[in-house]
Amino acid sequence: MGENFNSMYRTNTCGELRIADVGKKVTLCGWVQKSRDLGGMTFIDLRDRFGLTQLAFNMETHAAVCEQARKMGREFVLQAIGLVKERENKNANIPTGDIEIIVTDLVVLNEAKTPPFTIEDNTDGGDDLRMKYRYLDLRRAPVRNNMLLRHKMAQQTRLFLDSQDFTEVETPVLIKSTPEGARDFVVPSRMNPGQFYALPQSPQTFKQLLMVAGLDRYYQIVKCFRDEDLRADRQPEFTQIDCEMSFVEQEDVLAMFEGLVKHLFHSVKGISIPEVPRMTYADAMKFYGSDKPDTRFDMRFVALNNAENNVVGGKNFKVFDEAELVVAICAKGAANYTRKQLDELTDFVKKPQIGASGLVYARVNEDGTIKSSVDKFYDEPALQNWAKACSAEPNDLILILAGSDQKTRKAMNELRLEMGTRLGLRNKDSYACLWVLDFPLLEFSEEDNRYFAMHHPFTAPKPEDVALLSAGKLGSVRANAYDLVINGVEVGGGSVRIFNKDLQAQMFEVLGFTKEEAQNQFGFLMNAFEFGAPPHAGIAFGFDRLCSLFGGAESIRDFIAFPKNNSGRDVMIDGPSALDEKQLNELHIALKK
Amino acid sequence: MGENFNSMYRTNTCGELRIADVGKKVTLCGWVQKSRDLGGMTFIDLRDRFGLTQLAFNMETHAAVCEQARKMGREFVLQAIGLVKERENKNANIPTGDIEIIVTDLVVLNEAKTPPFTIEDNTDGGDDLRMKYRYLDLRRAPVRNNMLLRHKMAQQTRLFLDSQDFTEVETPVLIKSTPEGARDFVVPSRMNPGQFYALPQSPQTFKQLLMVAGLDRYYQIVKCFRDEDLRADRQPEFTQIDCEMSFVEQEDVLAMFEGLVKHLFHSVKGISIPEVPRMTYADAMKFYGSDKPDTRFDMRFVALNNAENNVVGGKNFKVFDEAELVVAICAKGAANYTRKQLDELTDFVKKPQIGASGLVYARVNEDGTIKSSVDKFYDEPALQNWAKACSAEPNDLILILAGSDQKTRKAMNELRLEMGTRLGLRNKDSYACLWVLDFPLLEFSEEDNRYFAMHHPFTAPKPEDVALLSAGKLGSVRANAYDLVINGVEVGGGSVRIFNKDLQAQMFEVLGFTKEEAQNQFGFLMNAFEFGAPPHAGIAFGFDRLCSLFGGAESIRDFIAFPKNNSGRDVMIDGPSALDEKQLNELHIALKK
Repeated sequence: MGENFNSMYRTNTCGELRIADVGKKVTLCGWVQKSRDLGGMTFIDLRDRFGLTQLAFNMETHAAVCEQARKMGREFVLQAIGLVKERENKNANIPTGDIEIIVTDLVVLNEAKTPPFTIEDNTDGGDDLRMKYRYLDLRRAPVRNNMLLRHKMAQQTRLFLDSQDFTEVETPVLIKSTPEGARDFVVPSRMNPGQFYALPQSPQTFKQLLMVAGLDRYYQIVKCFRDEDLRADRQPEFTQIDCEMSFVEQEDVLAMFEGLVKHLFHSVKGISIPEVPRMTYADAMKFYGSDKPDTRFDMRFVALNNAENNVVGGKNFKVFDEAELVVAICAKGAANYTRKQLDELTDFVKKPQIGASGLVYARVNEDGTIKSSVDKFYDEPALQNWAKACSAEPNDLILILAGSDQKTRKAMNELRLEMGTRLGLRNKDSYACLWVLDFPLLEFSEEDNRYFAMHHPFTAPKPEDVALLSAGKLGSVRANAYDLVINGVEVGGGSVRIFNKDLQAQMFEVLGFTKEEAQNQFGFLMNAFEFGAPPHAGIAFGFDRLCSLFGGAESIRDFIAFPKNNSGRDVMIDGPSALDEKQLNELHIALKK
Repeated sequence: MGENFNSMYRTNTCGELRIADVGKKVTLCGWVQKSRDLGGMTFIDLRDRFGLTQLAFNMETHAAVCEQARKMGREFVLQAIGLVKERENKNANIPTGDIEIIVTDLVVLNEAKTPPFTIEDNTDGGDDLRMKYRYLDLRRAPVRNNMLLRHKMAQQTRLFLDSQDFTEVETPVLIKSTPEGARDFVVPSRMNPGQFYALPQSPQTFKQLLMVAGLDRYYQIVKCFRDEDLRADRQPEFTQIDCEMSFVEQEDVLAMFEGLVKHLFHSVKGISIPEVPRMTYADAMKFYGSDKPDTRFDMRFVALNNAENNVVGGKNFKVFDEAELVVAICAKGAANYTRKQLDELTDFVKKPQIGASGLVYARVNEDGTIKSSVDKFYDEPALQNWAKACSAEPNDLILILAGSDQKTRKAMNELRLEMGTRLGLRNKDSYACLWVLDFPLLEFSEEDNRYFAMHHPFTAPKPEDVALLSAGKLGSVRANAYDLVINGVEVGGGSVRIFNKDLQAQMFEVLGFTKEEAQNQFGFLMNAFEFGAPPHAGIAFGFDRLCSLFGGAESIRDFIAFPKNNSGRDVMIDGPSALDEKQLNELHIALKK
């Protein structure tokens, strides 16, 4: 900074002056954060993006300007000229706290109506109001700091990828609709009547074409669009760090982007993260019931009705005997949970979105004896077998769910996360990264009675599993696909791509495409593959999500300057909106009655 | 580079190996540029993004792999393993020209059909074919280098603006349609039946809101959209370097972005450009007949029928006597133009798009006498007055057009540029930058019989001209608006913004908006201005254009990875395209019959 902000309006910012500046004549600009009229003296805290500086107005020496200062309301925009003076009551909480400005001239650059909520770190404004007046919300330090964090994240991402000779290429926004996958936003073409552009859900095909074009390493921080029903934390437009590399295998991609993640943690948060552990999809499902486990804490699943080691069967407890899966977690040191706390957990797992029918627990007492909620069926030796299976020690709490495999794993995942939260094991300032590998290539849809690509139709099967593909064992084929998970959040994912046209054709066949359909939808990519496609692989990171994670926040919304609400509306600009008839006519469309 | 590109597939790139690497065992990947079978030896030039390396196959020592090499077609993708050896016939034209690889193992990673045009610097492919197979066109060094230049331009732009504490903020792409200005692309909202998003023509209002939000300095390299009939070098989606600053006046903005331009020239082209000269809009029109004069050469307009100095009147030459404007340029050293060349110039100015009715010329001979095309009317002393007015010297050619003021200036601008080209004064490797200042605030539209904002409705009038605005002298009000022109191309433009709500209201009134219309269209911005808007100003650069200028090219298309044609079509992906009925129904729209 320094002379950098010297302009026709100001000599310094409100975050800049220090004790060494005492005696200087300065001009500051900013907003009135607050003012105090103490009779002989009036004080105004003047705020800009860079900080706060105290303006002091002396009734004795500068009566007129002091009178003027008394009339300044919150958020007025001021230009203040004066002398830097050492403060009597220093404020150690702000960098400018050693000094104040004895103001000799004051110019009101703009007045302000009273804002609809307070411009403070903790505002009294509700979500809706803050969204409507987003430009005021952005004045608050926590929201502004999110924007600055995002800026720094983008900067450091580019710095790293530039250093690795990735080329930033802008891919088009007006593209062609592809029926596969989520819904596209579309744009009627005035010049091509009856035809529509689509907005990209990702630059997937373009980045693959850039590899065919020989660009070798591509990246882009790019807006993508998905017209889905918005859940709590989804936005119709979102930003990806989109990357692709040529002449690489999975191992190369993992190494490269582990490098990016380490660089971001180090440069943005000052954190050195260790080598990122790896886990197969199968293990993630087995031990955490989720393909994005939060590995800040362990608390792995233990199946109690394993074929090899069934420690719950044969005791006439029908719930367990009839269950496809009986699975436990061991909550360290939680044996002291009260009846009330256990009831809360039971209520939690029975919520419709979790869907368990009940919760069984077993406390390991300090003396090693065990008290369970199913003592009727299980005697002490039986319960000790549970404890052994779970590696439970005195003071631990074993929590057990039972039912169908998939549903029970899902419910246990939720319960595990809940216990992690309750036991303080999910500190937002600690970070656990994880590669999840070997995803299934295909996913069966009961609804459509066919297989879909889990990632997308260009993902390569693992070479050792291609035989399974040919043998029709579609559910068993694993993909060279990988996700980066941080703190239980999927922040990135990618795959090695198919670059052989015969394998690609086989893949389309498996997915139920006729040759014509495949040609019609992906013809330009398949054609491109005929002209010498290199082996290539890539990854994309959810940039909004990555920023919110680095910012230690749950919601991505506060890391987007102008977000939309759950109906896809921007309540500040009040869009979308109706068009007039003339515009519709020009676009060759009409509204459906 | 170096170890950077070491992957599971290769140890080095094709641009990397030097004499110092002789003796190393390496693995390279790339495309077959060309191959030569010399019987005992076969050579393949292997190409990747980084260069070319010669692969050598020896029939005597490695017969099998040499046999294999003979079958490799153009653009096959190969992996070659071998030893680096010093070449006997060195090639000084390429950085790897001192070495070759004696190949011991060759893997065909992918085959390739014969490409539809040659992948050479000078290709045999026509525009349409190259667009259809853009991924092949991008393999050609000149096109690839354009992409790398663009990458570097973006990188250096961000580097500079980051160093000046600008914050990069992403503004939304799905916004609200505003009827003012060019046509918007629109996006039907599935969740808000009958309503449409618009794609931004620029982030203008959002960047102003970011200033109200106190972000102080904003930038973004951002896609913008304009649904206009496409002229030769327009794209429906284009990229802007978009910037805004708070607490600044025009002078601050000019200084800052002169800094950016100097930085780009220096870091990307290695050129140190001098201080950027300034010219008022009025002078630009007077001396060049254009608000974006090419100042690589002088050849200023000289009015010959000035009130103060009319050197053409009173000689009974009706064409000049009746003309509102008689204007000359002096082409230095062009007195030797032949009859044929002069006829060509006459044909040029008479073209419908130029629109002059004829061309008068006067040659200044070596001896100082003058020969003109209107000697019937003008004697030697009269012609000497022309020469004096034009500062013409022996061997110069004076070219004169006459007619209505505006039309004649426009035609003379074209003639001046044509002469500049013919005389070799428009070297694409020399750069002349210029600030054009003091644009009119308003422009009268004969068609609509009202004034429109020349820039946009938020541009501030010059403070000294506000009185003219109030007095209704609308055509005379100058704006604090500025354009950056390089070599006759407008590469950027911006303005100081209105930040006072009363002045903004006055502006809307002048533009014929009712209060309701203004509120309806720009309400959110006008509301924001009530809560303490700082003085602010900004600028936007056409990034595609800037890249093409730095690349020394006329067309922006070759600086866009996947451009659209003049009908707004991407011929590679064949978009836009039709949607199925189901999709239209979901969007609550129908096609107009």
